[in-house]
Amino acid sequence: MSILVVGSVAFDTIQTPFGKAEKILGGAATYFSLAASYFTQVRVVAVVGDDFGPEQEEVLRRRGVCLEGLQRAPGKTFHWGGEYGENVNEAKTHFTELNVFENFRPEIPSQYRGSEFLFLANIDPVLQAQVARQMSGARLVGGDTMNFWINGKRAELLQTLKLVNILLINDAEAKMLAGETNLLRAANQVLAMGPKALVIKHGEYGATIFFGDSGFGIGRHPFRAPALPLEEVRDPTGAGDSFAGGFMGYIASQGELNREVLKRAMFYGGVMGSFAVERFGPERLQNLTREEIDARFQLFRELTHLE
Amino acid sequence: MSILVVGSVAFDTIQTPFGKAEKILGGAATYFSLAASYFTQVRVVAVVGDDFGPEQEEVLRRRGVCLEGLQRAPGKTFHWGGEYGENVNEAKTHFTELNVFENFRPEIPSQYRGSEFLFLANIDPVLQAQVARQMSGARLVGGDTMNFWINGKRAELLQTLKLVNILLINDAEAKMLAGETNLLRAANQVLAMGPKALVIKHGEYGATIFFGDSGFGIGRHPFRAPALPLEEVRDPTGAGDSFAGGFMGYIASQGELNREVLKRAMFYGGVMGSFAVERFGPERLQNLTREEIDARFQLFRELTHLE
Repeated sequence: MSILVVGSVAFDTIQTPFGKAEKILGGAATYFSLAASYFTQVRVVAVVGDDFGPEQEEVLRRRGVCLEGLQRAPGKTFHWGGEYGENVNEAKTHFTELNVFENFRPEIPSQYRGSEFLFLANIDPVLQAQVARQMSGARLVGGDTMNFWINGKRAELLQTLKLVNILLINDAEAKMLAGETNLLRAANQVLAMGPKALVIKHGEYGATIFFGDSGFGIGRHPFRAPALPLEEVRDPTGAGDSFAGGFMGYIASQGELNREVLKRAMFYGGVMGSFAVERFGPERLQNLTREEIDARFQLFRELTHLE
Repeated sequence: MSILVVGSVAFDTIQTPFGKAEKILGGAATYFSLAASYFTQVRVVAVVGDDFGPEQEEVLRRRGVCLEGLQRAPGKTFHWGGEYGENVNEAKTHFTELNVFENFRPEIPSQYRGSEFLFLANIDPVLQAQVARQMSGARLVGGDTMNFWINGKRAELLQTLKLVNILLINDAEAKMLAGETNLLRAANQVLAMGPKALVIKHGEYGATIFFGDSGFGIGRHPFRAPALPLEEVRDPTGAGDSFAGGFMGYIASQGELNREVLKRAMFYGGVMGSFAVERFGPERLQNLTREEIDARFQLFRELTHLE
């Protein structure tokens, strides 16, 4: 089954202790699409500028990602520049040039409307809600957000959360959204805002999925998936979006949505996140095989499972 | 099989967002002993002062803990006072009155010498080494340390680490000891200092065991056990020592030391830590049943295991 993602397709200029990369392909929708492409058909709604060439498109097309929803606008593509120090969990932003992204108005091509799964990557919650309303027939809506919207557009975000079935955010975002320092209490408060399930990403410690009362009818017990202890995190950019791509992509590939599918999706999310950070930009996500992915899935299982 | 623990038996005065407790029973050896007592015979070597009464001893005796190695010295018992804020991972120390602990010279009663397992709780590494040398017949030596010794007695600590088979410390301590910000690289550096295995405790995110080249002949793949997401951490004091007690106690209760035993020990460590923080001081560890412990073990398994 197919999944539609709306979000940023962008250029990134990244510096980490392992090196520097100038104006390479990036953006939440890019990482999400590449990660999800190993599991299901992916369709992208995004906007790029004149400087976005066929070689960038080709990266996505080679993975079978459909780009009919990729708008072209006069001007430059969204370009983010930032740096990670020894603590790879914190990015220092050098510049954020929104460019054509500033006037992005997501339009869903008619042939995309039947997509069963929808992922609202981290963009303005007003746009997220517009897309969710256009896609009211979707079986499952996943979403992301960030501190910028939690603080700056809280009222709008709360409206959007009513349309999101599974929200994927990190610890700090969950605590900020809930105004609560305890993780479990924060999770319960966020679940009361609308989502049936909440995935909280803990970086190198993995991720936990929490379920609301009005969840998927599979109980409220949380489930935790690991992350792989890695010697080298070359570039953490896109780890969260790759997690979301593996998570949503695996769900979309399955016939039904039950507890076991969601648990395995958590593992696949962690797996795709662990691949993403091994190389600069989305490089590692371009040439994986399903065998490599499943071998790492097995590694994750061995890392945490008793006999 | 029996386990000998050397460490502090003390009084704590603790304040948390949930309340305050004055001069209650505490100390690393206390938490360790109570937690381990559900799995195996525990023997304590520690020192207390005149103010340590029969009612405090009774807490340990009721759990079958042997106190023949509990020295009495003229003066007051070690007394720690501290406070936890909303962030339960950081204690603010109000006072540390070493009292009789200042001149503690561990003496191993002759009937303790045959203990198969030894745990060196967080005390001066010089004393830890003295005990380890007196107990050279032990099958397995576990140990703990902290930033105070890592910074202040590094050379002595490095000598002690050659005598420790499994070191249990937290993320910050491992990184400080290794002088390294990446967790896996830090783990490998610590393992090169002597221990066959290293347990790094991640607080609310669980704990990971790493194995050295000269490990237990069970491969180098790490293993990660979860922690339970809790709505209320009433008092985090002793969580790490309770983890160590569950971990070492379970190992001591098993006939052989293989990978599966170590994996299950990691789970039991997390289980005992999760009980400890539910109430003030060691209260919750005094009246558990093995059934309650195994029910929570099952909860930990459900939290992380795929079908």
